[in-house]
Amino acid sequence: MAKNTFGIIGGDERQIYLARSMQEDGYEVSVCCLENARNTMGLRQTGMHSLVERCNVIILPLPATRDGCYLNTPLSNLEVRLDGDFARLFLNSRVFGGMLPRLTATSDLWRGIDSRDYYSREELVTGNAYLTAEGAIGLAVQEYEGGLGGSQCLVTGYGRIGKALCGMLKGMGARVSCSARRASDLTSIRATGCRALSYSELVNSFDIIFNTVPARVLDAQILESQRTDTLIIELASAPGGIDLETAGSLGLRVLAAPSLPGRMSPKASGELIKETVYNMLNEDRKEMV
Amino acid sequence: MAKNTFGIIGGDERQIYLARSMQEDGYEVSVCCLENARNTMGLRQTGMHSLVERCNVIILPLPATRDGCYLNTPLSNLEVRLDGDFARLFLNSRVFGGMLPRLTATSDLWRGIDSRDYYSREELVTGNAYLTAEGAIGLAVQEYEGGLGGSQCLVTGYGRIGKALCGMLKGMGARVSCSARRASDLTSIRATGCRALSYSELVNSFDIIFNTVPARVLDAQILESQRTDTLIIELASAPGGIDLETAGSLGLRVLAAPSLPGRMSPKASGELIKETVYNMLNEDRKEMV
Amino acid sequence: MAKNTFGIIGGDERQIYLARSMQEDGYEVSVCCLENARNTMGLRQTGMHSLVERCNVIILPLPATRDGCYLNTPLSNLEVRLDGDFARLFLNSRVFGGMLPRLTATSDLWRGIDSRDYYSREELVTGNAYLTAEGAIGLAVQEYEGGLGGSQCLVTGYGRIGKALCGMLKGMGARVSCSARRASDLTSIRATGCRALSYSELVNSFDIIFNTVPARVLDAQILESQRTDTLIIELASAPGGIDLETAGSLGLRVLAAPSLPGRMSPKASGELIKETVYNMLNEDRKEMV
Amino acid sequence: MAKNTFGIIGGDERQIYLARSMQEDGYEVSVCCLENARNTMGLRQTGMHSLVERCNVIILPLPATRDGCYLNTPLSNLEVRLDGDFARLFLNSRVFGGMLPRLTATSDLWRGIDSRDYYSREELVTGNAYLTAEGAIGLAVQEYEGGLGGSQCLVTGYGRIGKALCGMLKGMGARVSCSARRASDLTSIRATGCRALSYSELVNSFDIIFNTVPARVLDAQILESQRTDTLIIELASAPGGIDLETAGSLGLRVLAAPSLPGRMSPKASGELIKETVYNMLNEDRKEMV
Repeated sequence: MAKNTFGIIGGDERQIYLARSMQEDGYEVSVCCLENARNTMGLRQTGMHSLVERCNVIILPLPATRDGCYLNTPLSNLEVRLDGDFARLFLNSRVFGGMLPRLTATSDLWRGIDSRDYYSREELVTGNAYLTAEGAIGLAVQEYEGGLGGSQCLVTGYGRIGKALCGMLKGMGARVSCSARRASDLTSIRATGCRALSYSELVNSFDIIFNTVPARVLDAQILESQRTDTLIIELASAPGGIDLETAGSLGLRVLAAPSLPGRMSPKASGELIKETVYNMLNEDRKEMV
Repeated sequence: MAKNTFGIIGGDERQIYLARSMQEDGYEVSVCCLENARNTMGLRQTGMHSLVERCNVIILPLPATRDGCYLNTPLSNLEVRLDGDFARLFLNSRVFGGMLPRLTATSDLWRGIDSRDYYSREELVTGNAYLTAEGAIGLAVQEYEGGLGGSQCLVTGYGRIGKALCGMLKGMGARVSCSARRASDLTSIRATGCRALSYSELVNSFDIIFNTVPARVLDAQILESQRTDTLIIELASAPGGIDLETAGSLGLRVLAAPSLPGRMSPKASGELIKETVYNMLNEDRKEMV
Repeated sequence: MAKNTFGIIGGDERQIYLARSMQEDGYEVSVCCLENARNTMGLRQTGMHSLVERCNVIILPLPATRDGCYLNTPLSNLEVRLDGDFARLFLNSRVFGGMLPRLTATSDLWRGIDSRDYYSREELVTGNAYLTAEGAIGLAVQEYEGGLGGSQCLVTGYGRIGKALCGMLKGMGARVSCSARRASDLTSIRATGCRALSYSELVNSFDIIFNTVPARVLDAQILESQRTDTLIIELASAPGGIDLETAGSLGLRVLAAPSLPGRMSPKASGELIKETVYNMLNEDRKEMV
Repeated sequence: MAKNTFGIIGGDERQIYLARSMQEDGYEVSVCCLENARNTMGLRQTGMHSLVERCNVIILPLPATRDGCYLNTPLSNLEVRLDGDFARLFLNSRVFGGMLPRLTATSDLWRGIDSRDYYSREELVTGNAYLTAEGAIGLAVQEYEGGLGGSQCLVTGYGRIGKALCGMLKGMGARVSCSARRASDLTSIRATGCRALSYSELVNSFDIIFNTVPARVLDAQILESQRTDTLIIELASAPGGIDLETAGSLGLRVLAAPSLPGRMSPKASGELIKETVYNMLNEDRKEMV
């Protein structure tokens, strides 16, 4: 079976690291819509049509599209409209991308295209959770004027990011409280030395609050119990979990922190995508036998 | 006994937090040479002579002077020459400052002045070590393109900063190696789950190197074993522990990171100085009885 | 609605703590088949028939039966045969027990009885995992002649017990390796500072091996790579994951460690069951409205 | 220079591991007063006089004597009186032992003997501290009926053992409070995520108390605030820090836990002594040049 050739289109710096890493593994790689990246040396940059001819496996960004109209191309001057013409390019490709539904909704043609969402993969979401957590801590160290060690931190939510955050914050010497709904999560929070809180017990003053819940959990009452120098970091996807209006009127600092893996650890997050795509390709291969 | 009045002169943002914190404790506070600070609202700014008249306890910066010629006043347009005229101001004051010898060398008059170095205090140096360590980690998360979790980190030195760093890096999921000379330090490093190395065992590739040793320990041979994307963070005082010439010729990134407590945690480091000064004043009071 | 009355039948010391704890919460409690417990003071001991008349909620042991023939009653001289006569006692009761299928298979009458398996509950299994992990560490400290800090530990499996063990062993200063199959588990193991191994990479010498996999993963080849003083602790359910014959012929120490929660933390594990039963009763109540 | 020959006299199981380990390093080793050890196979057992003739380096136990009258020989039927005759044996030996002053006080002859106290060495005391801490945790897991994870633990004292304990307890998921006198210790305790208490703040209920202070810090008032199932572990040397009379009258469980390194980790503690003796011999060699 011929070796795969990879075409990487659009996205942020992690796509560059992804490209280089695959090249170092011995694969032929082309990139497109990344001409404004910090460093493209040694990478074959090519136009879209040329890329889909050369490469049988296409890797789109994470997310593939932010607005459902254009491909996510922050490092390119090109605007790539998502329509039938775009979809048609990939009729003979194997396409991988992150959070694909928004993209595949743009044309019926996607129904006939071999497209796979790497963000549905446990190993990627897990790896990204750890990178998000450490990025949030890096942000907190920088932006919080007190010390992280010994500070009273609240983490809302005990999903992948919440779990990772609780562990790391504890490791940095913070006093960690975590809110969750499930009894088993409260058990784990308690057993690992953190203070387990239900959502009705958050009316308490904290030094730093990390929100990982994509629903309004930090309401006016909770925000009013905070101090003016309490730092709040939003890690959940839009619309987030914070009553921003009240926060604003109380003068509370809220830092939105999306895409921390891409910002803080482009190499690690690029390689996560690479490994995930390799895993997916391997599994397909086994199924074919 | 009348309450102390505090005069805070020069220094960085932590002196502002120090001033406010003392004011919140109910003390009368004046500040001088801090007019360019981010926020001086609510603080009584006054000239030098007026300050020494009003205040019996004077708090100079950390360090009191960087060059031995002028007071350390980064947040002021004033240049304060360190000479007999300056010293004369404090003949009736109790003066606290950080790393004072360089300042007291500027005039014989200091011999007759009640001056105390708060940087000689264990609680301050200890607290600062933790703030330095977490600041270094914040920097690493930001500047290292991989993930900190799972990375191979080397910490040179097992003093206060080295110890704190090893613990926190472990808590962030890094794989920690630490070099030390003393057998008891190597024992502690090993017992806490880190890899203990002697200085002859550093010819090894690491992802991130944190140097805490103020002597040339990272020589050409060790630097040559690193990868181009290895990140090196210098935490020791000048001249540091890294052969910068070789590092430069190898294209290795070296981040100098002085005064992390002041940069990253001005409130925490300001309060550290405050508590230290309070402790010193309390101890004097007990001795007087 | 009348208050529940609880009847606790059989089981180990944790059932005594369960009983006392419910009594302290203000419930009427009777116990049966626990007469040989260390301390039954203050508990109403009664015969089986009397108990089912007094109490509407019955709590059977964990496991309810070890052999599918008799109720699990290690602290009683009574042998309670599991047949139709036994089942008939509970026609009007709400019955809770651990690992119930083996018990309910003993008579068709169980189909008509309100019986619930508390071991199917996430909060119990999770809590028990942490108690098992710390019990295993207590055992290791005692039985391993070296120090746990700095030792090379292998944990096979990254389920609830494996996860908890990795975290705690790291916290005790051990150098932790963990084997898993799923890519996301290997990612988590790596991100938290442990060495991630696949099952083909275990041919390596370790100081202590904790097996949590209920399938033969520690085969002859792996056992042969160990030292004579390597300690192996079996935490998986029968038949476990260790080739005991080879282990024996190699003179390797294998400690079987079943029911650590009950042995080491009877109070904690008893209260886990209590909280789980309360949760289950509460949820039923809400559904009834 | 001829190779050293080692004679190991008396002591507990760790002396056996010490002997074997030195033998494995290629040294000639004889032992005496250890005939009741679990396993003496392969070790040359000999009488006292024969041993001092064969061996130039003598290793006495830790402690060398418990009562100042007899050598510490728990694994022997021999009673070895400490007098001039005993001392005379070693006029031409190099003698190493633990806590030697009590032994050397038994005869003036010791003044003329080359004797060195390995318990004065930082690496041994440090290593032993970690082994003591993990042994205390093993004991707590076993003897405390609740779970260690999530429990409220108090550690009195922040010396070597206190520091190690705080770190490990935190790693096991406990909620740790620690009392200390020095401001810098309170700073460290706080910065590492533990609750820092002064000795006047201990009137509080805890689940487990670990005392490392060899002076009466756990007085009647503090003991009266505890629950009946609070577990207290004494780790300090006699007379310890607990008002045992009050503890007894309150029905509080106090576990005395001396020599945990020897009990729980005889191999590790034996090798600690070995490495320490080697270090001391090496340093002498360097001085001689």
